[in-house]
Amino acid sequence: MSNNNVITFSDVLDAKEKISPYVHECPVVTSSTLDKMVGRKVFFKAESFQKTGSFKARGALNAVLSLVAKSPEVHGVVTHSSGNHGQALAWASNMVGLDCTVVVTNNTPKSKCEAIKAYGADLVFCEPTYADRIKICNKISEERSIPYISSSDDYDIMAGQGTIAVEFLNQVPDLDAVIVPVSGGGMAAGIATAAKAIKPAIKGERLWPNPPRFLDSIADGIRVQQLGELTWPIILELVEKEVFSVKDADIVKAMKFVFERMKLVIEPTSAAGVAAVMSERMASMDPGLKNVGVILCGGNVDINHLPWY
Amino acid sequence: MSNNNVITFSDVLDAKEKISPYVHECPVVTSSTLDKMVGRKVFFKAESFQKTGSFKARGALNAVLSLVAKSPEVHGVVTHSSGNHGQALAWASNMVGLDCTVVVTNNTPKSKCEAIKAYGADLVFCEPTYADRIKICNKISEERSIPYISSSDDYDIMAGQGTIAVEFLNQVPDLDAVIVPVSGGGMAAGIATAAKAIKPAIKGERLWPNPPRFLDSIADGIRVQQLGELTWPIILELVEKEVFSVKDADIVKAMKFVFERMKLVIEPTSAAGVAAVMSERMASMDPGLKNVGVILCGGNVDINHLPWY
Repeated sequence: MSNNNVITFSDVLDAKEKISPYVHECPVVTSSTLDKMVGRKVFFKAESFQKTGSFKARGALNAVLSLVAKSPEVHGVVTHSSGNHGQALAWASNMVGLDCTVVVTNNTPKSKCEAIKAYGADLVFCEPTYADRIKICNKISEERSIPYISSSDDYDIMAGQGTIAVEFLNQVPDLDAVIVPVSGGGMAAGIATAAKAIKPAIKGERLWPNPPRFLDSIADGIRVQQLGELTWPIILELVEKEVFSVKDADIVKAMKFVFERMKLVIEPTSAAGVAAVMSERMASMDPGLKNVGVILCGGNVDINHLPWY
Repeated sequence: MSNNNVITFSDVLDAKEKISPYVHECPVVTSSTLDKMVGRKVFFKAESFQKTGSFKARGALNAVLSLVAKSPEVHGVVTHSSGNHGQALAWASNMVGLDCTVVVTNNTPKSKCEAIKAYGADLVFCEPTYADRIKICNKISEERSIPYISSSDDYDIMAGQGTIAVEFLNQVPDLDAVIVPVSGGGMAAGIATAAKAIKPAIKGERLWPNPPRFLDSIADGIRVQQLGELTWPIILELVEKEVFSVKDADIVKAMKFVFERMKLVIEPTSAAGVAAVMSERMASMDPGLKNVGVILCGGNVDINHLPWY
């Protein structure tokens, strides 16, 4: 590992040992129809089947278990989240007996809000701006003397998300590239760390939705378009300099394809990865990238408000 | 095997050998939330991931392969179908180079009709009555000199569907009962034949939706509420005398549960099995039925017209 990395492959393997008894090894799914369409073999890691409905369970559980080990006196945690990290932290906190408070913007899908409450966490709404989310979260952290657990800019979170890559490369050793939806960069940093350690030649492709500023995409899981201070140097070093931008219309089209043809319920953020692999930009890329992995990061969509209705 | 049975376990094993290279061994999925709700362990055989989106691919392929072996001069086949058998027969015929004509009622979901055409079959619409479907199908069979392949009342079809049970009991050897959606009875007859041979103590539970006459349920795959002449004696002997009737409202509720919590796209007919396992009737049954299997028979729902919109 390079000295510039601040999490190592060994951190990811430690996380895997800690969280494996409680999280699913999610299946890899394929579609021969899609493979024909794009002229490559595409492997989807279906984290939509993960505990709490997204990959975030991995990082949150690793963070909470590490926290309790380091600070046995801790009584609760707080976070702000677009929904999935909130559910995951609520679930993980509940498992280890910590109180949990989650700050969400008031436009967060109802299904995600209800799930957070169902795991026993306190839900606090804020204005739909990133700044307000942070402000309220910091206030609660101070008032209640509970640590803030970032959804991505945290080494334990990154190491937890990196376990996806360990499983994925065990399930499909021949992967040439992995497409990762990016918001804060926790998953991308973790996956890049693990994947480059296991298979140095692998490519990682970041993915950002259009428009280039945040909070205006149906992909509610990746509305925050800003890499974290801790994730940025890792991603800068380890991830390929290839960024896909996908439009909302392409996300909806990809989401419908996965519902109709693959029979999987996924959220728009997962569909962003599918849209990337179906894009013209992907079509123009090196044909040597024969086996492409895509992370279906979550399935927490409000089925009463699907984007094509 | 009893002498009353007109397909044997050996027919099912022969079918398995023939079709296995071309069909999926579909995964078994579980939900800890549902297990807690119903107080049993429930195992779902996700035939929604099968080729053509339903278990019907198994029987159709076995029927077509057997037909070509017996009658090499055959040039085409015809069937009537509520949609899934039509897709399956179109797909299987296309694979072996036969023409295929499918008669469907004019209220068949658009997604199923489009899929039938996409596999290269001719689609013929009829009035939404069972009688008209048969009449038109017979007429085409005579005019074009092509055999009619029943969706269920056919020994090769039954043997093909029976392969589900061979796989399921291999995946979950401890199953105490299997709940099977029934319409014509092809799947129930095949599964009962195989399951009783592998595990004589296993219970099979039939499932019919309310209301008791046909063509008035959202479960379009099981609108025809009449067992076939060939399936009836097999089911009478091998299947438990336990029939669940489920209401459309329960089907919709079960379908939403599977979309929201299990992240699977299923069609209403699959949800009928889920509704049965969630029903009060099931709750009142022998607690010794600890491990209950449910066949998620298909995933071919028109996602532009989901029943809760």
